[in-house]
Amino acid sequence: MASNAPPPPPSGSGPLSPPGPRPVMLSEEPFAGYEDYEFFRVTQPNLFVAHVEIHRPSKHNAFSEPVWLEFGSIFRRLARDPNVRSVVLSGAGERAFTSGLDVKAATEGPLAGLDGQDVARAATVLRGHIGEFQDCISSMDTVGKPVVAVLHGICVGLGIDIACCADVRFCTTDVRFAVKEVDIGMAADIGSLARLPKIVGSQSWVREVCFTARDFGAEEAERVGFVSKVCLSKSEALVQAIGLATLIAEKSPVAVQGTKEILQHARDHSVEDNLRFTAVWNGAALQSSDFKSSLLSGFTKKKPKFEKL
Amino acid sequence: MASNAPPPPPSGSGPLSPPGPRPVMLSEEPFAGYEDYEFFRVTQPNLFVAHVEIHRPSKHNAFSEPVWLEFGSIFRRLARDPNVRSVVLSGAGERAFTSGLDVKAATEGPLAGLDGQDVARAATVLRGHIGEFQDCISSMDTVGKPVVAVLHGICVGLGIDIACCADVRFCTTDVRFAVKEVDIGMAADIGSLARLPKIVGSQSWVREVCFTARDFGAEEAERVGFVSKVCLSKSEALVQAIGLATLIAEKSPVAVQGTKEILQHARDHSVEDNLRFTAVWNGAALQSSDFKSSLLSGFTKKKPKFEKL
Amino acid sequence: MASNAPPPPPSGSGPLSPPGPRPVMLSEEPFAGYEDYEFFRVTQPNLFVAHVEIHRPSKHNAFSEPVWLEFGSIFRRLARDPNVRSVVLSGAGERAFTSGLDVKAATEGPLAGLDGQDVARAATVLRGHIGEFQDCISSMDTVGKPVVAVLHGICVGLGIDIACCADVRFCTTDVRFAVKEVDIGMAADIGSLARLPKIVGSQSWVREVCFTARDFGAEEAERVGFVSKVCLSKSEALVQAIGLATLIAEKSPVAVQGTKEILQHARDHSVEDNLRFTAVWNGAALQSSDFKSSLLSGFTKKKPKFEKL
Amino acid sequence: MASNAPPPPPSGSGPLSPPGPRPVMLSEEPFAGYEDYEFFRVTQPNLFVAHVEIHRPSKHNAFSEPVWLEFGSIFRRLARDPNVRSVVLSGAGERAFTSGLDVKAATEGPLAGLDGQDVARAATVLRGHIGEFQDCISSMDTVGKPVVAVLHGICVGLGIDIACCADVRFCTTDVRFAVKEVDIGMAADIGSLARLPKIVGSQSWVREVCFTARDFGAEEAERVGFVSKVCLSKSEALVQAIGLATLIAEKSPVAVQGTKEILQHARDHSVEDNLRFTAVWNGAALQSSDFKSSLLSGFTKKKPKFEKL
Amino acid sequence: MASNAPPPPPSGSGPLSPPGPRPVMLSEEPFAGYEDYEFFRVTQPNLFVAHVEIHRPSKHNAFSEPVWLEFGSIFRRLARDPNVRSVVLSGAGERAFTSGLDVKAATEGPLAGLDGQDVARAATVLRGHIGEFQDCISSMDTVGKPVVAVLHGICVGLGIDIACCADVRFCTTDVRFAVKEVDIGMAADIGSLARLPKIVGSQSWVREVCFTARDFGAEEAERVGFVSKVCLSKSEALVQAIGLATLIAEKSPVAVQGTKEILQHARDHSVEDNLRFTAVWNGAALQSSDFKSSLLSGFTKKKPKFEKL
Amino acid sequence: MASNAPPPPPSGSGPLSPPGPRPVMLSEEPFAGYEDYEFFRVTQPNLFVAHVEIHRPSKHNAFSEPVWLEFGSIFRRLARDPNVRSVVLSGAGERAFTSGLDVKAATEGPLAGLDGQDVARAATVLRGHIGEFQDCISSMDTVGKPVVAVLHGICVGLGIDIACCADVRFCTTDVRFAVKEVDIGMAADIGSLARLPKIVGSQSWVREVCFTARDFGAEEAERVGFVSKVCLSKSEALVQAIGLATLIAEKSPVAVQGTKEILQHARDHSVEDNLRFTAVWNGAALQSSDFKSSLLSGFTKKKPKFEKL
Repeated sequence: MASNAPPPPPSGSGPLSPPGPRPVMLSEEPFAGYEDYEFFRVTQPNLFVAHVEIHRPSKHNAFSEPVWLEFGSIFRRLARDPNVRSVVLSGAGERAFTSGLDVKAATEGPLAGLDGQDVARAATVLRGHIGEFQDCISSMDTVGKPVVAVLHGICVGLGIDIACCADVRFCTTDVRFAVKEVDIGMAADIGSLARLPKIVGSQSWVREVCFTARDFGAEEAERVGFVSKVCLSKSEALVQAIGLATLIAEKSPVAVQGTKEILQHARDHSVEDNLRFTAVWNGAALQSSDFKSSLLSGFTKKKPKFEKL
Repeated sequence: MASNAPPPPPSGSGPLSPPGPRPVMLSEEPFAGYEDYEFFRVTQPNLFVAHVEIHRPSKHNAFSEPVWLEFGSIFRRLARDPNVRSVVLSGAGERAFTSGLDVKAATEGPLAGLDGQDVARAATVLRGHIGEFQDCISSMDTVGKPVVAVLHGICVGLGIDIACCADVRFCTTDVRFAVKEVDIGMAADIGSLARLPKIVGSQSWVREVCFTARDFGAEEAERVGFVSKVCLSKSEALVQAIGLATLIAEKSPVAVQGTKEILQHARDHSVEDNLRFTAVWNGAALQSSDFKSSLLSGFTKKKPKFEKL
Repeated sequence: MASNAPPPPPSGSGPLSPPGPRPVMLSEEPFAGYEDYEFFRVTQPNLFVAHVEIHRPSKHNAFSEPVWLEFGSIFRRLARDPNVRSVVLSGAGERAFTSGLDVKAATEGPLAGLDGQDVARAATVLRGHIGEFQDCISSMDTVGKPVVAVLHGICVGLGIDIACCADVRFCTTDVRFAVKEVDIGMAADIGSLARLPKIVGSQSWVREVCFTARDFGAEEAERVGFVSKVCLSKSEALVQAIGLATLIAEKSPVAVQGTKEILQHARDHSVEDNLRFTAVWNGAALQSSDFKSSLLSGFTKKKPKFEKL
Repeated sequence: MASNAPPPPPSGSGPLSPPGPRPVMLSEEPFAGYEDYEFFRVTQPNLFVAHVEIHRPSKHNAFSEPVWLEFGSIFRRLARDPNVRSVVLSGAGERAFTSGLDVKAATEGPLAGLDGQDVARAATVLRGHIGEFQDCISSMDTVGKPVVAVLHGICVGLGIDIACCADVRFCTTDVRFAVKEVDIGMAADIGSLARLPKIVGSQSWVREVCFTARDFGAEEAERVGFVSKVCLSKSEALVQAIGLATLIAEKSPVAVQGTKEILQHARDHSVEDNLRFTAVWNGAALQSSDFKSSLLSGFTKKKPKFEKL
Repeated sequence: MASNAPPPPPSGSGPLSPPGPRPVMLSEEPFAGYEDYEFFRVTQPNLFVAHVEIHRPSKHNAFSEPVWLEFGSIFRRLARDPNVRSVVLSGAGERAFTSGLDVKAATEGPLAGLDGQDVARAATVLRGHIGEFQDCISSMDTVGKPVVAVLHGICVGLGIDIACCADVRFCTTDVRFAVKEVDIGMAADIGSLARLPKIVGSQSWVREVCFTARDFGAEEAERVGFVSKVCLSKSEALVQAIGLATLIAEKSPVAVQGTKEILQHARDHSVEDNLRFTAVWNGAALQSSDFKSSLLSGFTKKKPKFEKL
Repeated sequence: MASNAPPPPPSGSGPLSPPGPRPVMLSEEPFAGYEDYEFFRVTQPNLFVAHVEIHRPSKHNAFSEPVWLEFGSIFRRLARDPNVRSVVLSGAGERAFTSGLDVKAATEGPLAGLDGQDVARAATVLRGHIGEFQDCISSMDTVGKPVVAVLHGICVGLGIDIACCADVRFCTTDVRFAVKEVDIGMAADIGSLARLPKIVGSQSWVREVCFTARDFGAEEAERVGFVSKVCLSKSEALVQAIGLATLIAEKSPVAVQGTKEILQHARDHSVEDNLRFTAVWNGAALQSSDFKSSLLSGFTKKKPKFEKL
């Protein structure tokens, strides 16, 4: 299966006019069922769109253990929620998307007691701790629905780990990125080193920023392909991101979520393996009413409605 | 083995002057043995160069099942043809490289009868159908010789699947690309999702265009590395593409086809695996007269002639 | 584990001011223990930084077998040397980083006697020869510490193979690159075809330069992400490269070398595999005093000193 | 999903009584549509069972190129034939399952002309030839339906390659096996070395028989797990094999062919990869009426009938 | 690192006398913290040994959804419990280890409502359901500590999926095994097809039992290597299994759990990958006091005590 | 390519008579060029056969660091030696093949000084040490020629690591095996856990012996496929092993070494990957005179002579 010829564009429209951002409701509704989180605000800017905001502004949205456990819990829930078809992630306040790990909390936490312990036993505790932390952050990578991240202000350390789990990254002109971990004496272990080399093209650049922990800004991030749009302000970036998420949410969820599943598979498999996986996947998906009604809408010019998924 | 110092450039030539396109014979000769295809025109613009043109202009070069079966048949033949060392692919007419799948034909074809069938049995039919379709298009990916695609006008859906199977992509300023499949309610399954993420650098961009099905043009395609040259017109793009294909066809086919084989292998294997594969490959290839005569020509300044391969 | 919020920048400093190159000692000290190489000069421009210079200027720094054996020997030694935390590689003289393989030496060497030999036996000799050659050059890829390559003048054939083994590539405006091997009748077999597609984003460009052996310059190299900085002169590029290497050498070697190990692993493994490997790695690394003293230095604002590694 | 408790066995039956071979029709019907092969006889011993007999008894069922092309053609057809749910493969006559490659034909065939050719060009011809040969034999490995091979008499060289492509191997007491290739100066290249190590448990034994080309018989083959049943005569082995194939053909083809697909995938993928592939596969397959009617038949004790697949 | 020469055996003991089962406390203590499960009894037959008993004897220990959720919950807890170093799994009652899936519950459960649903949406529900089911059963495969399964009576369908997740399998002479899934119209999807081919040597046998769903008994299971011990009764098998688990629990948990981790990794990675992973693992593990005290005990002949892990 | 029909057996010979061991020269000649090793004796029992004997009988052939460095050095030399086509490995004296690691030497060696060191730095030292140790032992796995190990007396710990690197394993009735490492508080890290699961069929057995460190003898080793022959005495086992090695050494080295290379590749790659690798390999190998003369000898009945490789 592949795609059809697009219908002729409306007269007066140039052939390349990209779809503008969908109109965004100004008052974001709280999302039913997601009211009780402490460190995140989840709202519904449009039908089938969830907006997750990291909300710990007094700490520059830094992550302590309760924060990342909640993060994992939210994304595991979004994964199964038929009312959600796309997600926007941003950080509260103007200062920071997130300043990364809450170092003070970390040094007082479970790792504090490892000194003097048997090395292998301390290693076991650390592996368990890192694994759980990774799982929480990776829950965004495996949520199964498109995620658009809006990155602004300080976005360092864990901020990069998280950004790498999004599908699409937008940022503001004032963003300050850094793969900061070597400056606290460690190799990044929540996914930046696993994912960053696979989402941008220049490995010379990747290695430089990972070894130096130096800052880089919006322009550099756009040039290497880390972000695909730079906006003048956070509010403008949010409008763009929600517009994109809304556009995606209006498409067939069978098509969009299948596309995501196959792209995730492609990242870690050979072309041949992925082609076979895709054929097996579409063996079921093409029997969907979404396929039939979308095909039909190409002829009738009526916008199809899709059942929940 | 690795390469030698290039001979000093002729005086008056700057160090970076890239080789210009080779002169192209204006009247393209029909290629002996490829005269009988219905939907494709195969000509020979230069020695050892085949030019394959999708030729169904009344349908915007859309692909129905007979078209893709013929496509597979041509490329399987080119793979074995010692008179072919490089291939140019383009679409007939000004409107479209290809508008992708011929949706009308598809809805009347073998898939039409699946409604009401047992789901597993319909899935088997679909898997078989998709697999055969994939094999036909992949035959260009596995043709074993460099393919240069000239993309112009409408190039959506299956057009992207096909373009991703080329080695080098050139386009015109008027091209309109779209990974269109989600708009017909399905995940692209003929290779765009398997290959596109591996041929450009920015995954943020890849995911955006795959989830939205939005149009993108020449400039954007060049910026992300999808195409490596943008020309003002289709005829200019053809001149450039045939020039490139001719330049390649003048090189040792042992060297060029070995290079392609190793690059294909590198895409899906580790560095270490690929180095071993390469050593095994060159264990035979370096015994070729092409290697000897090319080395010699470096000293004699005479252009070597290479036997057919 | 992930990173912390950066301390507030000193007043007067903009949020994006990247760290400038560290001051470089003008008289490069010979590096103790590396004095006796014939084709390379190894000096110590700064503490924990080694500068390796290919030094065969009368031959455009071309590589014959003794040269690459020495290259392998140096990098295997650097890998184990606790006095080295980062490496700069450059070529002596103004004409060339390296013109690649010393073709004359090659044609007179062990390969000369293969004519007329049994094909399988000649293939065995060739595989052995290629494998040993690959191992020598790959020793830079596996040195375990960041390597910054300064590429200038002629940098073709084996020059590309070598450049692809560096972490970070800087070049001068006068550089002339070419994946030259097809012009001597062979597929590149010392790593360009294995590594180049994995370090830049545009495969359309990769295939074009590999099939044509055409020259490309600094601007093109920067655009596709092959190099991450272009300098006006070789001396300026060296200052930049040594500055970068010095900056890296001042960081925790536990953090930097762990980062390199994990990035190397990520290149050839799935995200999931790499996350597990990382957790196992950091199970030991986070017990290091480097982690504790770096965390502490975030509070005390004193620069930590790190033990040799 | 997993399985149910089996219904209580009929009284008087021990808990371990394996199902006996199904009754076999004595006169094997020619299979409609498979009448025109020259080197094979295809019959239908029972509903949905195909029996393929290598039929070149005057040559000990040796394979020349026309034989293996026909072999590939038959199995590619069986793969798509809804009237076939399981296959039995055997050799005509008493002397040999197959004596392997028809060496005389091989030495007179396309390989004859390679002497004196350019090594790389001859290698290309050979790779093409081997690849096509492999594809024909592998068509039995990828037929998608269970294949039971009956091995008797001489079964050497290519006979082992072929036997390794079956799912289940039965043999007679008089069988004489050998991985014979080293005795004709070559490494086996049609699949014995790829598959044999993966279908038996003792690698010490595998390597011994592959390096020595020595004969081994039924008892040894059963001990290492190469065959799972030894019969006193070819006719008895055929009765057993057809009985097994018939038993399988009476099961749900959705279940059986899904099982084969997943087992093939498991051979070459990690446990985790396979579990995901299986979940995707069964997402469609469990919607089949076969699942429903089989579940129901567990309660009604009536044997379900399954639609063609 | 590798092992030392064993101390000379006590006089009077033959060189091959395997260690007998450790004495087992007859009254099994309930295991603190595991009292509240509905379908499982968890006791502590010896220090650091947990005995998990499937306890739904009125249903032949069949698994409905609440049962497998509890199973997953128990094994995820055992994974983190420092008081547990090895696990024995068995089934309550004489009739069955487990009859597998509780088919009646399954047909009334969440799958009941899928009829008539959109195929792609039903597939999504099924994939989610299968994935969660797989995760629960796989939690025994990933528990990180040795598991010994005692298999008796009926052990079919899901019973095989579960048994394949154990490290060591013992059975009784009266056991009745079957990979039963094809008889309910489906391919096994909880792991039998992923794991069974990797834990026994004869693929001919694996495919036969998977395609036929036929019964097989203790003798056959031992012959192909599925079980490594056959006992005359369930009580004797339990004594043997608990003896083995106790022997293991007395060893260094750092050594045993490292061994399990590396064996799990080896199953799905190349030899070379596994060797590197092992070196990284032991980089921490060999710094443990367990290594030192075990080495020392070889000289002092005193049995070392190991800290909790 | 595959094999030919074997010539009819000489009259009076049964169809299954395996080739007996070749006659062995009683006085083993020292092998020219291998005289100067301290811990090994290398002799030449027959043309093209090397016999390597671990020769440290006063220490039960235990391995300290100088021993394994010498082991690696010998096998790297054998790999390149055209006078060697197969290798037999055994241990001197009656007591032990090897008792494994020389624990006393190990505790006094480089690991002694790690106490109190920074954990990450000690881990780096350990990883380096383990990696070098692995490389030395793996040099037998990668020697490229068949190795037959004769295992007798004590064969524990490192003895198993080494045995797993052989192609074929023979043992005596008095052998005492144990994967001993957990008893010295560590996971085996020189390859037993990487290779043992891949060379025998029963994973239940593998895990039991790896977790318990218990002894097992010849009968058990043969039953699970670890060894493929049990002899009554060491001298008889040596006669058998040298006979096997001699038989192999008389075959075409192109065929035998190709077979080994492909089997090694098959262990760690998919069937499909291996088939392609094999086709590339044989593209050169089939042009060998070994292939031609072996084919011819099938007709002339004269034993071919093969050039050195």
